[in-house]
Amino acid sequence: MVIILKDNADPRQLEALKKWVETQNVHVHQSQGSHQTILGLVGDTVHIDIDMIKQLEIVEDVRRIQEPFKSANRKFHPLDTVIDVNGHLVGDGNLCVIAGPCSIESETQIMTVARSVKKSGASMLRGGAFKPRTSPYSFQGMRDEGIKLLLQAGKETGLPVVTEVMDISQLNLFAEVDVIQVGARNMQNFELLKELGHCNKPILLKRGLCATFQELLMSAEYILANGNDKVILCERGIRTFEDYTRNTLDISMIPAMKELSHLPVIIDPSHAAGMARFVAPLSRAAVAAGTDGLIIEVHNDPARARCDGPQSLTMEAFDHLMKDLTRFHELAKECKMK
Amino acid sequence: MVIILKDNADPRQLEALKKWVETQNVHVHQSQGSHQTILGLVGDTVHIDIDMIKQLEIVEDVRRIQEPFKSANRKFHPLDTVIDVNGHLVGDGNLCVIAGPCSIESETQIMTVARSVKKSGASMLRGGAFKPRTSPYSFQGMRDEGIKLLLQAGKETGLPVVTEVMDISQLNLFAEVDVIQVGARNMQNFELLKELGHCNKPILLKRGLCATFQELLMSAEYILANGNDKVILCERGIRTFEDYTRNTLDISMIPAMKELSHLPVIIDPSHAAGMARFVAPLSRAAVAAGTDGLIIEVHNDPARARCDGPQSLTMEAFDHLMKDLTRFHELAKECKMK
Amino acid sequence: MVIILKDNADPRQLEALKKWVETQNVHVHQSQGSHQTILGLVGDTVHIDIDMIKQLEIVEDVRRIQEPFKSANRKFHPLDTVIDVNGHLVGDGNLCVIAGPCSIESETQIMTVARSVKKSGASMLRGGAFKPRTSPYSFQGMRDEGIKLLLQAGKETGLPVVTEVMDISQLNLFAEVDVIQVGARNMQNFELLKELGHCNKPILLKRGLCATFQELLMSAEYILANGNDKVILCERGIRTFEDYTRNTLDISMIPAMKELSHLPVIIDPSHAAGMARFVAPLSRAAVAAGTDGLIIEVHNDPARARCDGPQSLTMEAFDHLMKDLTRFHELAKECKMK
Amino acid sequence: MVIILKDNADPRQLEALKKWVETQNVHVHQSQGSHQTILGLVGDTVHIDIDMIKQLEIVEDVRRIQEPFKSANRKFHPLDTVIDVNGHLVGDGNLCVIAGPCSIESETQIMTVARSVKKSGASMLRGGAFKPRTSPYSFQGMRDEGIKLLLQAGKETGLPVVTEVMDISQLNLFAEVDVIQVGARNMQNFELLKELGHCNKPILLKRGLCATFQELLMSAEYILANGNDKVILCERGIRTFEDYTRNTLDISMIPAMKELSHLPVIIDPSHAAGMARFVAPLSRAAVAAGTDGLIIEVHNDPARARCDGPQSLTMEAFDHLMKDLTRFHELAKECKMK
Repeated sequence: MVIILKDNADPRQLEALKKWVETQNVHVHQSQGSHQTILGLVGDTVHIDIDMIKQLEIVEDVRRIQEPFKSANRKFHPLDTVIDVNGHLVGDGNLCVIAGPCSIESETQIMTVARSVKKSGASMLRGGAFKPRTSPYSFQGMRDEGIKLLLQAGKETGLPVVTEVMDISQLNLFAEVDVIQVGARNMQNFELLKELGHCNKPILLKRGLCATFQELLMSAEYILANGNDKVILCERGIRTFEDYTRNTLDISMIPAMKELSHLPVIIDPSHAAGMARFVAPLSRAAVAAGTDGLIIEVHNDPARARCDGPQSLTMEAFDHLMKDLTRFHELAKECKMK
Repeated sequence: MVIILKDNADPRQLEALKKWVETQNVHVHQSQGSHQTILGLVGDTVHIDIDMIKQLEIVEDVRRIQEPFKSANRKFHPLDTVIDVNGHLVGDGNLCVIAGPCSIESETQIMTVARSVKKSGASMLRGGAFKPRTSPYSFQGMRDEGIKLLLQAGKETGLPVVTEVMDISQLNLFAEVDVIQVGARNMQNFELLKELGHCNKPILLKRGLCATFQELLMSAEYILANGNDKVILCERGIRTFEDYTRNTLDISMIPAMKELSHLPVIIDPSHAAGMARFVAPLSRAAVAAGTDGLIIEVHNDPARARCDGPQSLTMEAFDHLMKDLTRFHELAKECKMK
Repeated sequence: MVIILKDNADPRQLEALKKWVETQNVHVHQSQGSHQTILGLVGDTVHIDIDMIKQLEIVEDVRRIQEPFKSANRKFHPLDTVIDVNGHLVGDGNLCVIAGPCSIESETQIMTVARSVKKSGASMLRGGAFKPRTSPYSFQGMRDEGIKLLLQAGKETGLPVVTEVMDISQLNLFAEVDVIQVGARNMQNFELLKELGHCNKPILLKRGLCATFQELLMSAEYILANGNDKVILCERGIRTFEDYTRNTLDISMIPAMKELSHLPVIIDPSHAAGMARFVAPLSRAAVAAGTDGLIIEVHNDPARARCDGPQSLTMEAFDHLMKDLTRFHELAKECKMK
Repeated sequence: MVIILKDNADPRQLEALKKWVETQNVHVHQSQGSHQTILGLVGDTVHIDIDMIKQLEIVEDVRRIQEPFKSANRKFHPLDTVIDVNGHLVGDGNLCVIAGPCSIESETQIMTVARSVKKSGASMLRGGAFKPRTSPYSFQGMRDEGIKLLLQAGKETGLPVVTEVMDISQLNLFAEVDVIQVGARNMQNFELLKELGHCNKPILLKRGLCATFQELLMSAEYILANGNDKVILCERGIRTFEDYTRNTLDISMIPAMKELSHLPVIIDPSHAAGMARFVAPLSRAAVAAGTDGLIIEVHNDPARARCDGPQSLTMEAFDHLMKDLTRFHELAKECKMK
């Protein structure tokens, strides 16, 4: 942390500030120029409140040098985190493909899709039971009934299941769910994150529509700092001025997360683009860039889907895509190993 | 709603689509060109799922013409909504100024600030008990203890109190709170919004950092459609590329909400700018643009505030500002009446 | 400038870096921690290339502390710049209102509007002769013929004229123009800026659609550093995700520029909103926030305007607005003087 | 184009509007509802000014259905445009890699880099002679001297050369240049675009930092409509709220341009990320997504580069990357052909 002082800062206030900083177990080094004085704070500054210092009368500005996250920080955990979901490893060079419908709509639907994506090589089954919809007039999901159908489909196919929680009060229904998803709109629902820090399940944490990499990692930190170290990060597109695509897939999140953090990172091309015909090129791009996985919407009849039909692949298209992705993944691994 | 068909759309599928639309009590008018066919849907299309139609094989694109919100829509409720909070009217030409500290920190602090802002002419008292903080290592609020202190300060000064709820499970502590605030990060916490639709208290709904006007009104719609018609909209700055200010105050929200909706709209200059020295000019601007109110952070000792100190006004600065705002408000009313 | 070194930085490379920095007339102060070393550079670092240092093997990151602009910086020029345009002062507590049509379309049109806005109290006349249009199929302006008509209207009414240059090659037509406007799309047309630095006319420099405050001031610096110190800064809305308004007026630019720079700042509410009905509230807001002026589109027949009709005020609406703005401006001055 | 009329629109004004539209060779179809009337315009509406209609008293809103670009539109030119640059084809399934330094700095530098990238398999040589720099105090390029050195390096290696023009007045120096680049900041320098429409050279047109896909294609339209049909589109990152990367690479531009336009599209990973270590993953992603090419910054000594050192690859790193990209390109072609 660097503190830039105002010209003619009162010497007594400066001394007081320096003394206080030392009590926080952080060393202070003062750089004195003719027009400007800078304090360099060296040590663990995660617990120092930047806002409090900014407000001091003698301070012009404060800049953080160190990242404000610790548990999620690769600097303190150099080795990749690998998460074991019922024997399927996320991370460690694997390509984890999570596939399934946006919403669970019926037993036939979820069973049909589950069997099909299993056959195509998916690692896990996704399906929404609680649906965050912009409009109160849109279908809100099958809720507890949906969870039951999803678990049944998971059991029959042997695929671990991933589904979204929207509120703490729903968590009691998630006892048998394998991976709990936190949606983009809940990325900073801090009460929920704390609660998930106390459960012992892998959490798939989606980046918010206008969350920075650092904010995503701070949200992961809420889960990690509360005791749960199984967090999978997910990029699903950010909001920009471009409106041809639903959101803008930030493909740079893959290399960025690989250097900032040790947590696995996956890509959701379906929500990023909002168009089924963009899912294949974006998925290939993500694999080539080194993603640990993908989460893809697949529906047995997209034209009749109750939610997000336009971005769902048919089962045939998904099968075709999986064949391509396998080859891209092999090539990406070979290039990396060289 | 307008449906643009693909070239050479299959006539039988087109007939099927038109028939289905008619069953939704919406009339279809077909515009046939040499290269392009358009279907105009006239009637109440709020319940029609735009995504489902987009996915149809014969459809190139769908555009919504009608706004997707009804209860919050001025077209269907031409008169301004005025909300009575213990005798203080929000709307109806009043300037409602809500003031107080970011966080409730102690009895002395909240009582000191409450008495001071009351004397300066504030209409309501704000204070955070549950604090959404980006970092798990930052102060998270005094929680139930904070609510108690706030209620006590409200009782003593006669000011109605406004405080933020972060999760449904906290709501039982809000029985005596006068106005419940939903923060920017929870604007699309739909389960919480539904729950608030069932309570009979005014809700101060803050716009999310990257929420459009329409999305804000859709979130208001969640509350209204569930039975609670007392929603106050609040602009608190959006996220843009500019980082000199913490966020970018979208001053246009005032005239925009006045034409789109009948709900009152207030401005939060403290969070928008993140700097105390910008609060006065932004507040004056908001009043001149016709805001129904302001929510301003005031602290008895900003340099020692446990949260958001840099954006808090001193009690003296707030007192001074109130005098100016009163004059701007009078002038704004005179200019409007002419 | 602060240089954060990598762990275990090679001592010889570190010595070489420190020596090089000293040769730039900048002092180096080293802060040594157990895990992190920081170099604080104190002095005039404007000429040091941040990119070059970032690339060094031993460097983890570099942060600029000092603003990279000097001539436009209030720190080095504490007094407000006041620009005299044929006796009309921009700055110094005046409200400079520039009004006129988006495009000059005919002698009748520009003369009618000029006489009307003069009567309503405008300080200068605007009118576009060279029009930057997104589509090559849209009206591109009357070009040299337009300049002639504008100058004629200026002469007859006694109003100084403001018009936009799009390319260096057009500058010879601007000899009698009073204020040369650089549009948002040309804010980083550096060759044009350099050329304008060599002329002796006031320049109205509009902020680019996605330019930061700092970038705007760096563009002003191109003009100032080349010898022309008469720059008027103009906010005309930035591009965000919100699409209800054409752009988002960043009202915070007014207090921001007042602290960062000594140059006058004006607001363009017409382009910011793209809707005539938003011009009045946004103009009042700008005046209340302390703007030095406004640039407003006024047309004698907006429904038949060849460009930007939807955002143009009628002459009657402008006349009405001017009366209100005068009162807001007086009040703003009174509040400031207290 | 769809015109939404206000309730109770005056019937005579409506008739006048309909008659006027018919004179533009566009058919009108009226959809009459109980509360809403819509006019559907079918035909070539490119020349109709949407702003003019929006302003009419009886009109509530206007929406464009047809894209406003024609020459760049795939609908009217279904076959891919392939551009021949001295025997190197851009498009047609080739991977065109343009490599070289950000700035030309000396004969030794440009010759060394040219020979090296040629050996590694680059298709063309890039190098900046006129440099658009945010700061007037930064290196502005070697200008005409730089062009000469670049042409010499091109001649010796047999590589076609690509370099940026910043102003019409510089164009006479570009007679022997093979591809003229228009930078992001000049994407809407319409006078320059028109001029380039009259020359007979391929133009590499970079997307502006906050330009939509449609605006990029409208800028291409300026060149095409003026007679030059050789335009290569280039994505180089857009500006978003994320600041960990310099800009955000919008990888979706590849599939988007493939469906909207027939023009070839290439990716600039160096400017998008602003970090050399992100160039490899982003390049692989672009190839996997189906790009027609890449433009990559390569320097013989990045730590001493006078511009953009941090984002330049070493010659060794580029050589290594080319080997990987060749394999990804082959795989992408195979997957496409299936």
